[in-house]
Amino acid sequence: MSNGDIFLGEVIGTAILILFGAGVCAAVTLNHSKARASGWIVIAFGWGFGVLAGAYTAAPLSGAHLNPAVTVGIAVDTGTWDKVWVYILGQMVGAMLGALLAWLVYFAQFQANTDPTLGIFSTIPEIRNPVANLLTEIIATIGLVLPILAFGRTKGLADSGTLVLIVSLLVVGIGLSLGGPTGYAINPARDLGPRIIHAVLPIPHKGTSDWGYAWIPVAGPLIGGALAGAIYNAAF
Amino acid sequence: MSNGDIFLGEVIGTAILILFGAGVCAAVTLNHSKARASGWIVIAFGWGFGVLAGAYTAAPLSGAHLNPAVTVGIAVDTGTWDKVWVYILGQMVGAMLGALLAWLVYFAQFQANTDPTLGIFSTIPEIRNPVANLLTEIIATIGLVLPILAFGRTKGLADSGTLVLIVSLLVVGIGLSLGGPTGYAINPARDLGPRIIHAVLPIPHKGTSDWGYAWIPVAGPLIGGALAGAIYNAAF
Amino acid sequence: MSNGDIFLGEVIGTAILILFGAGVCAAVTLNHSKARASGWIVIAFGWGFGVLAGAYTAAPLSGAHLNPAVTVGIAVDTGTWDKVWVYILGQMVGAMLGALLAWLVYFAQFQANTDPTLGIFSTIPEIRNPVANLLTEIIATIGLVLPILAFGRTKGLADSGTLVLIVSLLVVGIGLSLGGPTGYAINPARDLGPRIIHAVLPIPHKGTSDWGYAWIPVAGPLIGGALAGAIYNAAF
Amino acid sequence: MSNGDIFLGEVIGTAILILFGAGVCAAVTLNHSKARASGWIVIAFGWGFGVLAGAYTAAPLSGAHLNPAVTVGIAVDTGTWDKVWVYILGQMVGAMLGALLAWLVYFAQFQANTDPTLGIFSTIPEIRNPVANLLTEIIATIGLVLPILAFGRTKGLADSGTLVLIVSLLVVGIGLSLGGPTGYAINPARDLGPRIIHAVLPIPHKGTSDWGYAWIPVAGPLIGGALAGAIYNAAF
Repeated sequence: MSNGDIFLGEVIGTAILILFGAGVCAAVTLNHSKARASGWIVIAFGWGFGVLAGAYTAAPLSGAHLNPAVTVGIAVDTGTWDKVWVYILGQMVGAMLGALLAWLVYFAQFQANTDPTLGIFSTIPEIRNPVANLLTEIIATIGLVLPILAFGRTKGLADSGTLVLIVSLLVVGIGLSLGGPTGYAINPARDLGPRIIHAVLPIPHKGTSDWGYAWIPVAGPLIGGALAGAIYNAAF
Repeated sequence: MSNGDIFLGEVIGTAILILFGAGVCAAVTLNHSKARASGWIVIAFGWGFGVLAGAYTAAPLSGAHLNPAVTVGIAVDTGTWDKVWVYILGQMVGAMLGALLAWLVYFAQFQANTDPTLGIFSTIPEIRNPVANLLTEIIATIGLVLPILAFGRTKGLADSGTLVLIVSLLVVGIGLSLGGPTGYAINPARDLGPRIIHAVLPIPHKGTSDWGYAWIPVAGPLIGGALAGAIYNAAF
Repeated sequence: MSNGDIFLGEVIGTAILILFGAGVCAAVTLNHSKARASGWIVIAFGWGFGVLAGAYTAAPLSGAHLNPAVTVGIAVDTGTWDKVWVYILGQMVGAMLGALLAWLVYFAQFQANTDPTLGIFSTIPEIRNPVANLLTEIIATIGLVLPILAFGRTKGLADSGTLVLIVSLLVVGIGLSLGGPTGYAINPARDLGPRIIHAVLPIPHKGTSDWGYAWIPVAGPLIGGALAGAIYNAAF
Repeated sequence: MSNGDIFLGEVIGTAILILFGAGVCAAVTLNHSKARASGWIVIAFGWGFGVLAGAYTAAPLSGAHLNPAVTVGIAVDTGTWDKVWVYILGQMVGAMLGALLAWLVYFAQFQANTDPTLGIFSTIPEIRNPVANLLTEIIATIGLVLPILAFGRTKGLADSGTLVLIVSLLVVGIGLSLGGPTGYAINPARDLGPRIIHAVLPIPHKGTSDWGYAWIPVAGPLIGGALAGAIYNAAF
């Protein structure tokens, strides 16, 4: 895959992922949304099917990492680091683009907004505790990246075209099970890109962008992804 | 595929889609329904599995577009426009037939109706703002049609028979994530066909058919489908 | 397939289907159940994954109809009626066995019961209207059997082993969308078998078995299945 | 497969399963969780997708039983018992490890805990009745293991790589339908391993580990698994 295709695939795929992901958080959170207060099951499936939409679209171009933690996990496992910067650059650009698109989809709702909106763009911990929050993100990301690495070994899965479906249901599962404490970034681009957009957008009453927390959903997933790559490399 | 098969497939498939889709809106909305007030997760999965039912049924006959936005997106990408009118004609007839069938399934409930019923047949925006509503429908339709076009490139997916399943889960995702502002038409036939039926049916207290809004869920998806075709053609 | 294998497959498969289906109705309805009042989404997925469990188990033995409406639909389409009685006999025995197993799973809950329990075993219309109820069951059953017949034509679906998965999600969709008025029997054995068991079991305060309604969830699905077979035969 | 690979696979796979499973119980139960009180649908899908995550990861190493009831069911069917101890040892170690990881993910929440926490780790019956509880676990486990044994016969399923997906949806279905009375252990390691960890962990106000009930979610699933193996061996 050329650097151009990788970059383009990661931009398009991550943009779709965040369009759906920030979209479902807007859907459940904002006033004047038909999905208002429809619960955690909606959040988890919305993010999961965002992976489905984005990753199937990106896969022919870039292999669809859409997540620096996945890119790093693969690099640790394979020892090949030379394309990592292209992937992460595409993911960051895509995540910002996706957050912008989600804002446009919910434009009238955001214009009528009266409450803090960071939770639509980025993660906020329920209990603020850096060590515990970091640990949550590390373990949850291992729970994402280790199975993804192992999926490649399942006979027939890639050839049947259903690999991305399985990954998207895995992401639903991580949301349902491990999202309670921090809102499951498990992806640095998913958190940092939209946080930058949140800081920039002219949303009424948008509230803080909470930069003091921003390093945790970046560092935690990167550590988790690297650990998953190391565990996979050792165990399989 | 002959014009006859295309027409027949699109009529049957779109009728089943709208039977399920209008059906789930009736299920959640109408009094004396066992699914009353069961929430957005039910709406989104109901529409998605309506795609599953309709598209698997139609696929052997017509390839199962079931949506003028998909038909236009494919035409823009391939440059082939000669069958477009057959597809759209079949979709419109099917959508009206499906709305009629949904009314028959919930006949006793509709006879006992006391509230406005347009939301069962067609989309209504939460905040009425033509520019914002149009934008919502355009972006949400790109989120539908761009992945559908890209699915064709996923190795093994079509051969495994699970392509329609993936599309149906994509539609669930669009509902969950992008349906909040306008109720996600993302399909001109899905909105206009049932709106005509709503205008005609003798439902007590049925309320307005809201023709002033009707152009948005037609124009938005058509623009979004065309844009998705153009983006796909340029990027892939 | 021998008559013995067909009978055995239909007994085991339908028993599992009804164990899960009556089970989920018990789970949502009975006091002292962890799933009490968990809503329509639970009902619809519970029945759908009951199809998944029962049909995958039965398929190697009997092809897994598990429903006289499916058996009749196939017979109308193919013109082959000689095995129909074996299928339906197995389905009825299996449905009664499954209802008995569901009662055993929820034995302590049933012993503590204080409310009418027929809704756990068989369907009850929200609005009692024989013509409307019959029409609901006919159309909902066409929505089940017509896609099932068409699934056979989807390239690769049967060979990938995911056909039953698609059918089970179709059943989820029918529940979500078309189950509101009558509780979606769409299967004569699913309704009549458990109704017989309800009439026989010594459940405290079990209430009426409502035999006056019992013919509708038998006749409706049989008519719907036959119509689906005829439509499929004409259209495809 | 070597004993080492089997042990490693069962440890990793069962640890992931319990991380997700105990995780979702924590998510729905604990204060200061974003998924608090999100209902039975979340519980059932969380456990099911825990199977998806754990079993796809373990399958290349051990075949991914992750459950002594499955191991015993296969042993009864095939008559081969020599690896059973390796599987069960790995499952027990993995289940304890997974419970520990779930505790770490929800560490801040557990530190702030004020209510009994056993229900996050192990099953508790709604109505305490040893005979009825045992019967529930036996039948629910047959509902798990009999289909799993039969899945092996479905043409193309294993080759398409979607077998584990089907098993995970089956587990969702068992939770939805048969989980009401006892909380569905259906797996001795899933219940006993986390119970040991619950007894050991320094959680404030953690409450009893309820050892008087502990034998039922061990004995019931083992009996159910053995019965399923015997039924399968006789019927197929």
